[in-house]
Amino acid sequence: MTALFVDLFAELETLGQASRAASRVLAASSTAARNQALLALARRLRQPQPQVTEANAQDVAQAQARGLEAPLVDRLRLTPAILETLAQGCEQIAALPDPVGEISQLARRESGIQVGRMRVPLGVFGMVFESRPNVSIEVASLGIKSGNACILRGGSEALASNRALVALVQAALEEAGLPPAAVQLVPHADRAAVSWMCTATEHLDLLIPRGGKGLIERVAAEAKVPVLKHLDGNCHCYVDEHADLAMALTVVDNAKTQKVSPCNATESLLVHRAVAAAFLPRLAERWAPKGVEFRACPESLPLLPGALPATEADWAAEYLDTKISVKLVGGLDEAIAHINRYGSHHTDTILTQHHGHAMRFLREVDSASVMVNASTRFADGFEYGLGAEIGISTDKLHARGPVGLEGLTSQKWIVLGEGQVRT
Amino acid sequence: MTALFVDLFAELETLGQASRAASRVLAASSTAARNQALLALARRLRQPQPQVTEANAQDVAQAQARGLEAPLVDRLRLTPAILETLAQGCEQIAALPDPVGEISQLARRESGIQVGRMRVPLGVFGMVFESRPNVSIEVASLGIKSGNACILRGGSEALASNRALVALVQAALEEAGLPPAAVQLVPHADRAAVSWMCTATEHLDLLIPRGGKGLIERVAAEAKVPVLKHLDGNCHCYVDEHADLAMALTVVDNAKTQKVSPCNATESLLVHRAVAAAFLPRLAERWAPKGVEFRACPESLPLLPGALPATEADWAAEYLDTKISVKLVGGLDEAIAHINRYGSHHTDTILTQHHGHAMRFLREVDSASVMVNASTRFADGFEYGLGAEIGISTDKLHARGPVGLEGLTSQKWIVLGEGQVRT
Repeated sequence: MTALFVDLFAELETLGQASRAASRVLAASSTAARNQALLALARRLRQPQPQVTEANAQDVAQAQARGLEAPLVDRLRLTPAILETLAQGCEQIAALPDPVGEISQLARRESGIQVGRMRVPLGVFGMVFESRPNVSIEVASLGIKSGNACILRGGSEALASNRALVALVQAALEEAGLPPAAVQLVPHADRAAVSWMCTATEHLDLLIPRGGKGLIERVAAEAKVPVLKHLDGNCHCYVDEHADLAMALTVVDNAKTQKVSPCNATESLLVHRAVAAAFLPRLAERWAPKGVEFRACPESLPLLPGALPATEADWAAEYLDTKISVKLVGGLDEAIAHINRYGSHHTDTILTQHHGHAMRFLREVDSASVMVNASTRFADGFEYGLGAEIGISTDKLHARGPVGLEGLTSQKWIVLGEGQVRT
Repeated sequence: MTALFVDLFAELETLGQASRAASRVLAASSTAARNQALLALARRLRQPQPQVTEANAQDVAQAQARGLEAPLVDRLRLTPAILETLAQGCEQIAALPDPVGEISQLARRESGIQVGRMRVPLGVFGMVFESRPNVSIEVASLGIKSGNACILRGGSEALASNRALVALVQAALEEAGLPPAAVQLVPHADRAAVSWMCTATEHLDLLIPRGGKGLIERVAAEAKVPVLKHLDGNCHCYVDEHADLAMALTVVDNAKTQKVSPCNATESLLVHRAVAAAFLPRLAERWAPKGVEFRACPESLPLLPGALPATEADWAAEYLDTKISVKLVGGLDEAIAHINRYGSHHTDTILTQHHGHAMRFLREVDSASVMVNASTRFADGFEYGLGAEIGISTDKLHARGPVGLEGLTSQKWIVLGEGQVRT
């Protein structure tokens, strides 16, 4: 190991220890103190902050000098509108109920002890993200609300901006009497810092990567710390033989075209053979002006003018574009089997008026969100009423689907006794 | 890679695929069918099963021939009493409520969709265990009840017995119309099979190691599959200045000496300085006939006749023996800090009549089970009313503390709509 790495790791160890210590204070802090920090942060985001403006201008200038493409440069910019949105976000999070301390299922056992569960912060979580510096504030505010310390590692191109924003957060924490180390930034662009976070099981209770597939795959491969992530969003709509076809048309249209880039947009359409001839030409007509490109199975190809033949790769594809794969199926079993085989366990919906089919689809499709007669685009923390979203998980353990404040907590067992002993 | 390993891995891949397919059937199966399989298994365990008896005799004979110590040989034996206990266990698990399919928190959102959660099986879990072949039946029955497929990998010395027991399970599954592949045994003593299970993220949703610390450390180090485990049980009793000392005496005695080998037995005693002189000599007197050995801090040493001075290593030790470390503290803060630093996040209890101290201890001690005025020995799935226990977790994600059937399930989101789309 080079001397540089030894220094980096020593520095990160110190940072990790400070996070753990701060997490103990935050876990024990009052709801009022954490909300006060969030409101202080909102106020600071609205005040003129020359050091933020200058740091951001520096990042933007450097990105332009390095020849970064204009849309990527734009993602770096902290405009007054963005700072206002971030301030509003902090206020909204302050207004949410405190997830910490809730006691549930407290019941007396035969031995006389009362056993229940208490919701508590996880401790320290890490967030690795790319590009947009706003993420620093969004994540810090969720961390503070949920009583966790967090360690942020943003993209190298936004390092100065992230530093300035985290300084604002730390000042707000201090104002509320909370330890500034509860939110810390890894002050290095070095990729080795990500490796450290992947393996820092002593310091991190959870690691959340947010960004391109390359980043998430790298973190998933290296991580010894538990990871909250989703890789793909290959979402399906299944139009059952008992579907209301007018409703199906509206929902499938929305699921695919309301916005094509989010992970909850539909990428694959399964249609029961019995309704294909009635449904698909109407869909093709509706989508002709929108320029949606069909990748169709041999049977559906003749029903979709201009469609391309689908290959095996299409069934697993996440286009994030105005493209959709189409396959006819013989019934519910085949639809469920196809989704469980080719899907990404993200979000899938059935269009049907058949109660039994709806119930079987809900139970047997092995995805984080399973829907009946609703657009896959609803798979979202805000639409689900979580009030905030730290990420989406397609894994099955801990948190599944859109993850809000609850996903940053755990439930421990509590036992209340009056001197009971085990016999 | 040698040809042997290529063959082994190819065989394990096939086994994994069969498990996944069986898990889909089990997840969709009725409560009645799964209970029928459990009752059929109980019946078969009570019938004479020559192939089980012979296989077990073979394992025992081989162990004796290899010179295994008598207590270890005894752990292999499937006596009629053990088979009867296993049969009763299957019946008890059949009688538990079905954890699968429960829908909770279903509420209408502003958009008109109804959003809730549905409890579903994880899919396929793996269990790596040592020695006692009974574990095959215990784990298989929990897997069946929770609607999961499972892959078992027992100790090499019990391979024939495990094979015979898993054959009984598979016959019971078949009798209930369920796929026998829902419970499979890795038919190899090769350690490479454990490595395969650690990394088979396609095939396993969860891996549970049960056995010695060496096994658990190895699995934790190698695993890419999520692991449910606990390593140490360094549990604490803290006798607060506001404790009822007679109650404290009873509870601490029970927590340490009711049984010294379980992971929830107390290993370390913290006593507030203000009550040490009144409490410790009485405890020493009570434990004199029991031969409990004290490892005491300098301040408590004079209060405990015959105690040895504690070293730094004693604060983190899991003795699983008639030994206890003792440390005086100046108050609640010091007690909590000591437990969070040296403890194993397993189970810790406070003895106090002070409400505020009790509440702070519950909230701030970062352990899977935190208790007030109750013996640490209560940290157990049966005592907590889970009806069964697949393991104990000292990790914070997914399941924490004693883990029952619920820990073998996850909650997915369900959305019920009537054609709603996102705007």
